[in-house]
Amino acid sequence: MRLQELAARLGVAWAGNPDCRLERVSPFETAEAGSLTLAVGKHRENLSSSQASAFIVAAASFSDAEAAPHSFLLSPSPKVTFAQAIALLHVPPYQPQGIAPDFICGLDTEIGTEVSIYPRVTVGKNCRIGNRVTLHPGVVIGDCVEIGDETTLFANVSIYHHVSIGRRVVLHAGTVIGSDGFGFAQDATGNHIKMPQVGDVVIEDEVEMGANCCVDRGTLGTTRIGRGTKLDNLVHIAHNCEVGEHTLMAAQVGLSGSVKVGHHVTLAGQVGTNPHVEIGDGALVAGKSGVSKSVAAGGQYSGMPIQTLKEWKLTHIFASQLHKRLPQLEKRVKTLEAQSQPTGSGVRGSDSETADGSESS
Amino acid sequence: MRLQELAARLGVAWAGNPDCRLERVSPFETAEAGSLTLAVGKHRENLSSSQASAFIVAAASFSDAEAAPHSFLLSPSPKVTFAQAIALLHVPPYQPQGIAPDFICGLDTEIGTEVSIYPRVTVGKNCRIGNRVTLHPGVVIGDCVEIGDETTLFANVSIYHHVSIGRRVVLHAGTVIGSDGFGFAQDATGNHIKMPQVGDVVIEDEVEMGANCCVDRGTLGTTRIGRGTKLDNLVHIAHNCEVGEHTLMAAQVGLSGSVKVGHHVTLAGQVGTNPHVEIGDGALVAGKSGVSKSVAAGGQYSGMPIQTLKEWKLTHIFASQLHKRLPQLEKRVKTLEAQSQPTGSGVRGSDSETADGSESS
Amino acid sequence: MRLQELAARLGVAWAGNPDCRLERVSPFETAEAGSLTLAVGKHRENLSSSQASAFIVAAASFSDAEAAPHSFLLSPSPKVTFAQAIALLHVPPYQPQGIAPDFICGLDTEIGTEVSIYPRVTVGKNCRIGNRVTLHPGVVIGDCVEIGDETTLFANVSIYHHVSIGRRVVLHAGTVIGSDGFGFAQDATGNHIKMPQVGDVVIEDEVEMGANCCVDRGTLGTTRIGRGTKLDNLVHIAHNCEVGEHTLMAAQVGLSGSVKVGHHVTLAGQVGTNPHVEIGDGALVAGKSGVSKSVAAGGQYSGMPIQTLKEWKLTHIFASQLHKRLPQLEKRVKTLEAQSQPTGSGVRGSDSETADGSESS
Repeated sequence: MRLQELAARLGVAWAGNPDCRLERVSPFETAEAGSLTLAVGKHRENLSSSQASAFIVAAASFSDAEAAPHSFLLSPSPKVTFAQAIALLHVPPYQPQGIAPDFICGLDTEIGTEVSIYPRVTVGKNCRIGNRVTLHPGVVIGDCVEIGDETTLFANVSIYHHVSIGRRVVLHAGTVIGSDGFGFAQDATGNHIKMPQVGDVVIEDEVEMGANCCVDRGTLGTTRIGRGTKLDNLVHIAHNCEVGEHTLMAAQVGLSGSVKVGHHVTLAGQVGTNPHVEIGDGALVAGKSGVSKSVAAGGQYSGMPIQTLKEWKLTHIFASQLHKRLPQLEKRVKTLEAQSQPTGSGVRGSDSETADGSESS
Repeated sequence: MRLQELAARLGVAWAGNPDCRLERVSPFETAEAGSLTLAVGKHRENLSSSQASAFIVAAASFSDAEAAPHSFLLSPSPKVTFAQAIALLHVPPYQPQGIAPDFICGLDTEIGTEVSIYPRVTVGKNCRIGNRVTLHPGVVIGDCVEIGDETTLFANVSIYHHVSIGRRVVLHAGTVIGSDGFGFAQDATGNHIKMPQVGDVVIEDEVEMGANCCVDRGTLGTTRIGRGTKLDNLVHIAHNCEVGEHTLMAAQVGLSGSVKVGHHVTLAGQVGTNPHVEIGDGALVAGKSGVSKSVAAGGQYSGMPIQTLKEWKLTHIFASQLHKRLPQLEKRVKTLEAQSQPTGSGVRGSDSETADGSESS
Repeated sequence: MRLQELAARLGVAWAGNPDCRLERVSPFETAEAGSLTLAVGKHRENLSSSQASAFIVAAASFSDAEAAPHSFLLSPSPKVTFAQAIALLHVPPYQPQGIAPDFICGLDTEIGTEVSIYPRVTVGKNCRIGNRVTLHPGVVIGDCVEIGDETTLFANVSIYHHVSIGRRVVLHAGTVIGSDGFGFAQDATGNHIKMPQVGDVVIEDEVEMGANCCVDRGTLGTTRIGRGTKLDNLVHIAHNCEVGEHTLMAAQVGLSGSVKVGHHVTLAGQVGTNPHVEIGDGALVAGKSGVSKSVAAGGQYSGMPIQTLKEWKLTHIFASQLHKRLPQLEKRVKTLEAQSQPTGSGVRGSDSETADGSESS
């Protein structure tokens, strides 16, 4: 595609050679003639080190003087333009595959138009499957499930009964939605009596989940994942959690029961939480943290137990210096005590014994 | 159902209006007319804030004076009664679904009576599947597997060969039982030679596992999960682990090889262990801990490396205060050293500089 | 099998009774007559406590005087010989099972000879499946996938399109290869725009992965797992990671995007990493660590943030002693301050300071 045409389709300005031909999007380092690439951060200052034919740069960073040897797409959001360029040049448009002849479909289930239902898919009773939905092989859907338009479920995804999934949702292979929450009541003998899990799950529009995630149904009531929220692989969402919109959870995050996560929150990899905590809008929690109590909106947090990121950094700096600073300080105090000892004995009388040498080892 | 009838079926006492109609069990906050709810903890003192028609309370906490405006179920174990009430009012009784016509079943496999084998289930040779067993779509069972009566395997569960699963066991979707343990022997060139994993797995009665759990078979010998033990989602149990009875493991817990876990143990979310450690009966390990050595029965533990919960709390309190207390103390010592300095200056002459204040910051 | 014959087939020396019959390999503690077992470490000094008929020991540790009551295999690598003996005595040789009649296979896909394709397997278009490949029930393979000779995919494994898997690879049940990486670009309103993931995955020869692992495809370019590398259960490998050869990752390890891991690295259980870090050849990272920055080859590391193992041990020893040493030191300083106050200037005898100035550094 020509630079000028690509710019028009992506809705951004361009500079350089309008006829420059772009055949693919490539990483900065491995770009070749015909490649479009992203030039932000350290790459922005070093365009000549890439063989790319054109660069996506921040429109605000561009000056005409630069254009001479290179071609550019000038974007207010270079990463978004990069994503859209990949989609345009590399992702073929959706082609409905129809319904495989071995499809097993329960009574009173409605299937939309232009779907792609691959072989070995099983759907229960009383479901509604939207238009242009894609169900890969091995997908199992229970009774009374709704799936919105243009949603894709990859291979071997399991959806239990009474689950509602919105439009343009993507669930990667092996993900499980609607399994029972971990709720038991201990009886007098110490046995764990199952708390039946009779609630449901709502996954709102444009949610994406990675592979082998698990979202439990509510015990009573609903487990909800808000619109536009993205989960990486192997994420665990317990019963009755409420996750807001446009939130990110990296791989192996685990939310305990009844946790509330706000909008635009970021939980980095392997974060865990206590039950019933709240994580405010826009909060950022660093990787491997344990959210042991509720944390406020907008803050940055880290550690187990959870601290503000600033406190956590201080704590760790000091902890790592301790094996030097503490013995040194103890030595200095010992020196001071030794200095004060003889003075005291002759001059200060009996209270000098309080120089607690006995405690010092 | 009328209050009096419900009380009779649950085997507990009641108070208030025997004809009070209860149609559902609801959370305290969202209960409406016709709802039964649980009133313990903070809710116990605040019954009027719920619209529920009846409350499950601890029998010991109840006095007749209270009954006037409300109706009650009086239970020695309110949470157990709550669980049983949900089962009674919300969970339809088991109805055998029979065997789907596409069932693939190996030679010499016996199937019990009143089973529910959904479509797309594959069972190997020489298996014994008990009565009233439910196998959801996509379940794969290898050769020589036993599954006890009334056990349920949800969608896409994978059971390898030579696995024994007890009665009334529940395995949620995507869970894998009997995969090879992580055993390799390094040869002289640094290559990892596979240790063949030829042992088996025993899952005893009334075990429940969440979604996408993994239980490895023994290398030689058995990996065993004791009766009544419950695992949350994404739990990893390595080869040759022995887990006792009525133990709880929250989501994303991982046990290394040959770990022994006692009875009535609680491992909170994301706990990990070293290989070969033992965790005594009744021990409680806090979330995200690393059980780096064996821990005794009955104790409470936290941290990585593992400490008693009490030590861990102390360690963290002090660590988090260190950035204030350590510099402050260093400053006070410096002041003391400075005070001792001038005294010396008149007397000690040139060797006074060895009071190394200059090195102290 | 007779001892002498077994030794010949394993290519090691023997001692004792050449006709000693060995029927099985057993753990040291539970070995019986007819068992071969491994005697290394603490077991080496205590052969009489095992009922085994023969012991695998390090050739270098053996002296003829020892042979009288026992029989031996004498190996330069006893654990490797142990692994090979299990394979020889317990693992039946591969028997091709052919192709199940319900096999669903896309156009232009080639299947090798002597394969074992179990029921309910789905393979896409333009794939090449090697000789003696085993595909268990529920395996789903997308378009344009290559699978090398003698590779085994266990039940419900999901392989996306454009994935290359080498020879003698083992992927345990529920594992997912080629799902989309976690890549999003935030637009001006805070929505996360999907970065299409159009790269691929290469799994080299002799890789083994546990159950329910996830390996994401490259965004652009390749995610690669090097030859002979072994992953335990529930491991997460993000987009564009490059993992070297003969590396070990224990259960629940998670690598963020674009991480480079060298050859012969060991990552213990539940280790996580920041994106873009590098872990040098032969490095060892202790369990639950967070690799927050790149770490050099050959080192041992622990903690979050990451430290050398030595520093981490020091940090933890001091942190755990802090609740004793810090208050004690504060008390001593307070005492010194109290002493210095009244004494003030001019009171303390001039000679006292000379005491131990020499000790102060």
